[in-house]
Amino acid sequence: MAGFHFYHPVEVRYADIDAQRHVNNVVFFTYMETARAAYLRRLGLWDGKEFLDIGIILVKAECEYLLPIAYGTALRVGVRTEGIGTKSLTFSYSIEALEMDRTMALGKTVSVAYDYHALRSIAVPPAWRKAIEAFEQDGPSRPAGHP
Amino acid sequence: MAGFHFYHPVEVRYADIDAQRHVNNVVFFTYMETARAAYLRRLGLWDGKEFLDIGIILVKAECEYLLPIAYGTALRVGVRTEGIGTKSLTFSYSIEALEMDRTMALGKTVSVAYDYHALRSIAVPPAWRKAIEAFEQDGPSRPAGHP
Amino acid sequence: MAGFHFYHPVEVRYADIDAQRHVNNVVFFTYMETARAAYLRRLGLWDGKEFLDIGIILVKAECEYLLPIAYGTALRVGVRTEGIGTKSLTFSYSIEALEMDRTMALGKTVSVAYDYHALRSIAVPPAWRKAIEAFEQDGPSRPAGHP
Amino acid sequence: MAGFHFYHPVEVRYADIDAQRHVNNVVFFTYMETARAAYLRRLGLWDGKEFLDIGIILVKAECEYLLPIAYGTALRVGVRTEGIGTKSLTFSYSIEALEMDRTMALGKTVSVAYDYHALRSIAVPPAWRKAIEAFEQDGPSRPAGHP
Repeated sequence: MAGFHFYHPVEVRYADIDAQRHVNNVVFFTYMETARAAYLRRLGLWDGKEFLDIGIILVKAECEYLLPIAYGTALRVGVRTEGIGTKSLTFSYSIEALEMDRTMALGKTVSVAYDYHALRSIAVPPAWRKAIEAFEQDGPSRPAGHP
Repeated sequence: MAGFHFYHPVEVRYADIDAQRHVNNVVFFTYMETARAAYLRRLGLWDGKEFLDIGIILVKAECEYLLPIAYGTALRVGVRTEGIGTKSLTFSYSIEALEMDRTMALGKTVSVAYDYHALRSIAVPPAWRKAIEAFEQDGPSRPAGHP
Repeated sequence: MAGFHFYHPVEVRYADIDAQRHVNNVVFFTYMETARAAYLRRLGLWDGKEFLDIGIILVKAECEYLLPIAYGTALRVGVRTEGIGTKSLTFSYSIEALEMDRTMALGKTVSVAYDYHALRSIAVPPAWRKAIEAFEQDGPSRPAGHP
Repeated sequence: MAGFHFYHPVEVRYADIDAQRHVNNVVFFTYMETARAAYLRRLGLWDGKEFLDIGIILVKAECEYLLPIAYGTALRVGVRTEGIGTKSLTFSYSIEALEMDRTMALGKTVSVAYDYHALRSIAVPPAWRKAIEAFEQDGPSRPAGHP
């Protein structure tokens, strides 16, 4: 459960629970998506406002389910950039239960840099590469405790 | 269960079921929304493509829950225009289980005619009024059995 | 925006946003449901674990939409008991944007006391009535700052 | 787009569309889940009623996104069993647009045979193995046209 400079807290909603009385398997991807968007905002790569400026499009997503998540479990989702290709970005995720100090699921997504205005894939912009490398190598630039 | 010229079939998804092992109460509104969008398309009021042309914005929604809906229940949602004001449109809904021939829930929504390009409410366009009145008074213009 | 002893914070998820680029109208009911479950837990009426012990079943829900909610808006949902009948409980809700200090939506639900083990409605238990009246009349019994 | 004896039709709901105005990436997994449950019912491996009898638990899920899915696209999801291990079942999926005759996404899930009453993984029951092999080798046993 180490190796993440970024964690995003997630609340399990009542509606996230399915007939098996645990968080529905699909919702794990919603948790990852929520954390991924927050990660982009944190790194200054997206303003959280203009959806056509989000800059990446998903091409692959996967999740490995380790433990069922009960209603009421306080979660955090770790996100980090695993790799940067010419056009692609690979993020990895760790969905963790705070009180139990357990990893509930691991995920990975591959995105391609994308210009939603021109509707075409592009090379990963140098500014993205720089921001990600700075964040991932040196850790968060803001003091601890600031979300 | 009479009085609707328009019905839209809805499949209960596994993920619609919550911890009580029936369709989650919130999902009833998704069923109504799905049917409302199909109703607008059927009347030629929306092409189903341009989201800024959808022409109405929701101001109120309500649902009366009559019976719990189990996974696997074949449903249809009746939609009809209940009233047309200067600026507003009131739709009513009936969520029905086909095999049981039972009404599971009744709903009502109030929308206001809205120009999403100009971001302001508008008067209900005469073309809307005409299309709705023709459909609701005389019933579907296409032969019965055509969805 | 006064009159609520209980507020529950809600994070807008990326997936809550629909094609109109605001929180989907249905998701407002998810916010209310999430807050209602937290309210029951706070008052000691549900342990958050045994779903058959949740004690109420929804019979009506409504929402009045005042303002569209954008991605990134920090929300809190106020919940209070509006009325207690022989068998029914009426809750009201206020969905509020913290930074803007604005009410985005108002809601109301009617639930009936329900024994999920016996599958039948019951009278509102005296312990519920007592806990609710104590909380609503005198405010939260725990010191401020404790969630 | 060949090689599937089982297809399940899926309707894109208005609420499935996200801020990018295509089906949200997470919802692809809901489509696969919906189709997987229907596949189990079709093979007689689950009655669609008793959730503790569903017999499998998910341990891994992945999706490869090929094309964005627009609102109004008529979809079908192909499901087939890709492999049967001592304890595990691997299913593969193809999400296809009917009118365009295009594959929109490919998926794969790994489940483990599970006894929800005893809360433990079990060996894949011989009856499952037999039903799956019969269906996958020889195709559907019912006449074409029967869903």
